[in-house]
Amino acid sequence: MHDIWIKKMKKVEQIKIKPNMKVSELVKQMELSGVMGAGRIAKAAIILKEMKKDKDCTKFFGFAGAMVPGGMKDIVIDMLESGYIDVFVTTGANLTHDLIEALGYHHLQGESNVDDEELRKKGIDRIYDSFMPNQVYEGLEDFFTKNFKTLSEKRMNIKEFLWKIGSLMPKKQPSILRACFEKKIPVFCPAISDSGIGLMIWGRLAEGKKIEVDAFEDLKEILDIAWTAKKAGVIYIGGGTPKNFIQQAMQFSPIGGAAYGIQITTDRPEPGGSSGAPLKEGISWGKMNAQGKFVDVICDATIALPIIYAAVKE
Amino acid sequence: MHDIWIKKMKKVEQIKIKPNMKVSELVKQMELSGVMGAGRIAKAAIILKEMKKDKDCTKFFGFAGAMVPGGMKDIVIDMLESGYIDVFVTTGANLTHDLIEALGYHHLQGESNVDDEELRKKGIDRIYDSFMPNQVYEGLEDFFTKNFKTLSEKRMNIKEFLWKIGSLMPKKQPSILRACFEKKIPVFCPAISDSGIGLMIWGRLAEGKKIEVDAFEDLKEILDIAWTAKKAGVIYIGGGTPKNFIQQAMQFSPIGGAAYGIQITTDRPEPGGSSGAPLKEGISWGKMNAQGKFVDVICDATIALPIIYAAVKE
Amino acid sequence: MHDIWIKKMKKVEQIKIKPNMKVSELVKQMELSGVMGAGRIAKAAIILKEMKKDKDCTKFFGFAGAMVPGGMKDIVIDMLESGYIDVFVTTGANLTHDLIEALGYHHLQGESNVDDEELRKKGIDRIYDSFMPNQVYEGLEDFFTKNFKTLSEKRMNIKEFLWKIGSLMPKKQPSILRACFEKKIPVFCPAISDSGIGLMIWGRLAEGKKIEVDAFEDLKEILDIAWTAKKAGVIYIGGGTPKNFIQQAMQFSPIGGAAYGIQITTDRPEPGGSSGAPLKEGISWGKMNAQGKFVDVICDATIALPIIYAAVKE
Amino acid sequence: MHDIWIKKMKKVEQIKIKPNMKVSELVKQMELSGVMGAGRIAKAAIILKEMKKDKDCTKFFGFAGAMVPGGMKDIVIDMLESGYIDVFVTTGANLTHDLIEALGYHHLQGESNVDDEELRKKGIDRIYDSFMPNQVYEGLEDFFTKNFKTLSEKRMNIKEFLWKIGSLMPKKQPSILRACFEKKIPVFCPAISDSGIGLMIWGRLAEGKKIEVDAFEDLKEILDIAWTAKKAGVIYIGGGTPKNFIQQAMQFSPIGGAAYGIQITTDRPEPGGSSGAPLKEGISWGKMNAQGKFVDVICDATIALPIIYAAVKE
Repeated sequence: MHDIWIKKMKKVEQIKIKPNMKVSELVKQMELSGVMGAGRIAKAAIILKEMKKDKDCTKFFGFAGAMVPGGMKDIVIDMLESGYIDVFVTTGANLTHDLIEALGYHHLQGESNVDDEELRKKGIDRIYDSFMPNQVYEGLEDFFTKNFKTLSEKRMNIKEFLWKIGSLMPKKQPSILRACFEKKIPVFCPAISDSGIGLMIWGRLAEGKKIEVDAFEDLKEILDIAWTAKKAGVIYIGGGTPKNFIQQAMQFSPIGGAAYGIQITTDRPEPGGSSGAPLKEGISWGKMNAQGKFVDVICDATIALPIIYAAVKE
Repeated sequence: MHDIWIKKMKKVEQIKIKPNMKVSELVKQMELSGVMGAGRIAKAAIILKEMKKDKDCTKFFGFAGAMVPGGMKDIVIDMLESGYIDVFVTTGANLTHDLIEALGYHHLQGESNVDDEELRKKGIDRIYDSFMPNQVYEGLEDFFTKNFKTLSEKRMNIKEFLWKIGSLMPKKQPSILRACFEKKIPVFCPAISDSGIGLMIWGRLAEGKKIEVDAFEDLKEILDIAWTAKKAGVIYIGGGTPKNFIQQAMQFSPIGGAAYGIQITTDRPEPGGSSGAPLKEGISWGKMNAQGKFVDVICDATIALPIIYAAVKE
Repeated sequence: MHDIWIKKMKKVEQIKIKPNMKVSELVKQMELSGVMGAGRIAKAAIILKEMKKDKDCTKFFGFAGAMVPGGMKDIVIDMLESGYIDVFVTTGANLTHDLIEALGYHHLQGESNVDDEELRKKGIDRIYDSFMPNQVYEGLEDFFTKNFKTLSEKRMNIKEFLWKIGSLMPKKQPSILRACFEKKIPVFCPAISDSGIGLMIWGRLAEGKKIEVDAFEDLKEILDIAWTAKKAGVIYIGGGTPKNFIQQAMQFSPIGGAAYGIQITTDRPEPGGSSGAPLKEGISWGKMNAQGKFVDVICDATIALPIIYAAVKE
Repeated sequence: MHDIWIKKMKKVEQIKIKPNMKVSELVKQMELSGVMGAGRIAKAAIILKEMKKDKDCTKFFGFAGAMVPGGMKDIVIDMLESGYIDVFVTTGANLTHDLIEALGYHHLQGESNVDDEELRKKGIDRIYDSFMPNQVYEGLEDFFTKNFKTLSEKRMNIKEFLWKIGSLMPKKQPSILRACFEKKIPVFCPAISDSGIGLMIWGRLAEGKKIEVDAFEDLKEILDIAWTAKKAGVIYIGGGTPKNFIQQAMQFSPIGGAAYGIQITTDRPEPGGSSGAPLKEGISWGKMNAQGKFVDVICDATIALPIIYAAVKE
């Protein structure tokens, strides 16, 4: 009887590498091995493909961590433009770095093991081993000086405020925020004040200028989207506020939680925080559907996201 | 010559355990060993003590992760009431769990390895191995129904909104938010909409009620505090938005970054996110002062915070 | 009905810190909170106490990681001398560092963020933020030159070889190996050749001297102990070969796996290695007994072990 | 002047994904981004390629963790047969799993979140989410019964013992150990007694049979190889005894430490253990050469190794 049980289990095929292998072929090998990190990369690719094909599925994408300084910007833009993302939630930092690049600046490669005091003197900010000259703040100042009137002309929610920025952005480089605006993809950032963009607004507030952006109004939009979706899928890069904000909305999806889920994180679950919590935990809350397909990929997102996306990109 | 260099180094004393040892004695032993995790726990206790004694130091406390379900609430209340915290920044989740306990509910102990579908059916939400009955939402509903008029009578920033909640809270159990209100300790929560409290406000917005809480106005308050402080100290539990929001303010402290810093986290630095970034990285940004005293404690906060605080509590 | 289920769950008590608190009182508070890392520290203390009191229980202790340079030596000696350990398994590195200290040397405190090339020039070896002057090798050379004849006079298994070293050790400082010898506690170290002690033996082999230490003979001893034990308990610090070697023996314990288990590790389970595997996984192998009491403490051992031991030490 | 410094830094290019991309193209994109995990994957591929081309370089490969159950066996065999590995060091577990597959068994795919007691009853052993029927031990018994005489006919070191097993292995499936034997690649396993192979030998010892395998003799071989190498390169998968054993040998390489190094691990450095120690730390010991090229890839090896190898495989 045990033998029958065992016979139903799939064999772990040893991964085979061929010369000039395509990423999709490598990920197929990972699917055949089916275990540990490799197995989860493959499962994520399968779920991403399926989620994309499912016409009934509204796809929520949470994007946290230093992902623009980490080289993930163009992948996200491509995903936004190719129909992988219907709702985009991120941190103020990623939007600020996106704006900085749109203004013509770029991030720089370096070492993590450096003299930070020396960097301070040189006017260079460090994000692990990615660097940014402090001069970018001059560009940000110019941008907000030039556009503040437009940005502040009426009371807005955060999404409207961000689309407005997206509409005003120069086109020197591809931009996540401009792509969201152009594709009319709702972009949420609950903690927007916690960012370089926040600081720019503060600068104007400190000068006595006025701008009214509402802290709670976005909830109506994202919960409406969740509520009216036939089905929901979620993709979480790095946890943080973006994951939690989407998870909160999932409680309102009609079928009872997301039907698809991909999470990429290196955070541990044991201390109990949302960023490290396995998707499975969300079932108890009605955030994930118990019959859904989901996977936790425990991996640096700058490694996992490019592989998974390259495996499904057609 | 090398010998001279070596002679200046402190010896690693092997930690000695005595019967009935006090926490302060144990942490003193950790100070004498001086290395790895134990050495960092001891260093954190020394910095916390020094920061407290420094009359010129304004102390910013960032509190992220599932810390109220994790049993850290009363420690934080004690720190608020004993002068360890001048500015408090946290997540909406912690404030919601704090409110839930103030309403007379409590969290429950369980196992992390459970059937989440079964929990769903039973109406129990899971936060790793801490649990919460779904009924708490009825209590939240009642609270916000009863108090919405007061909460919405004028346009506010998030801090004012939270103090207002603090002022309205029942006294069934000790509360972080009520302690902040009573002690007039500024409490910031940039992503407040991302929480059970947010959902309660959404419920009223969806009914067409009106409440105006501003997303950016808090920045004026926290940056003013940072700007006018003689010196700043920072304590970060778990990273997240609270850490980033305080770090952002630190760029405006007159002496150029925080003079004291304690960080407790289990996040890795390599993926580049703020939660796992060593405090040292902040020097490059002017968030931490290069001559400051700081330490990264790589540990579950529910273990590290009680030990550190018990070692300095007088 | 659900309410009944919920009523049976224990409340998460918020941890309370008092001035001059004893470690045992703090860990009692952690027991009352009962969740996340704190709850696991408390559970480990309870299991350690119970295991000690159980006269039928043979206690196996696996000790990996840089624990002697990390200040854990005297705790282990105290545990060996106080009846907490019946069988001791460790790495060659810990035994070498133990011998080095017994010869009168000590480890030194430093910073992890240093110039390793400079250290190389100064003749200082680094173990994260613990340091050791290269001169210790002269002391090791002298010790093995003086004692090689005694060490090589007959064919031995590794345990006999290590006891012999223990019997020859100077008494300048307390020693794990000498304590094992004096208390006649079997000490196993399967990968003994992978250590400074191994290098010393190699030096003699390279000179054409002869010593016969057998790679497999220890298995008879440890498996006999496991086989004849009424009950077994296991404590794993840091995983590695020591954990795996004890787990292997547990398959032969008559009641079917260890009845008690404590594991302290920071390794992740997902990549599948033994060091990060939860104790629960051992049930499938018959290494842990399904009715046993066990806990995984996800924490730096230099933090967790002193707290747990201080909480139970009488 | 600062601008000059900044101008010398390389730009972080945002990673671009094309349809049907080859792994080598993806890794080229990661090289252009150059930061965080992606940058390190690319750097590892560059170093692996360079190490292979360097005719003066003796390449040491340390292989720890559940890598055969994790699907990495055929990659390692391919590396052994294609000249990427000159000296192979591993754990007893990997050699046992390799032998098990050579005997015609295979590992099975499953879930990590399972009932281990049920597995116990069904006779299935779990290694995270890879499974193995207990029946494999019958095959091992048969193999060692049939071959014990040959294995025990003369006193051997561990390498000779393992080559002997390699020579006797059936050819039902590809095998690491047979590949080492056939290619005459030295294979070391200091803790061989800590494995299923060890248990098989113990079974015979317990019956009073005799086999003499020496614990220290291998050191002469590996240190001779290190000593006579013009240059050394090291590749560490998962740390453990294999890494430490090679690092120990590196202290004897004439140029003063390895000239190339790749480490793939998810272990943290802070607790001080060898598995999580950055390669850079080895400079202080003379294990890594300060002018060498090396990189720490913080990633699940079942993800990182296939990508890196697929990127260089020609």
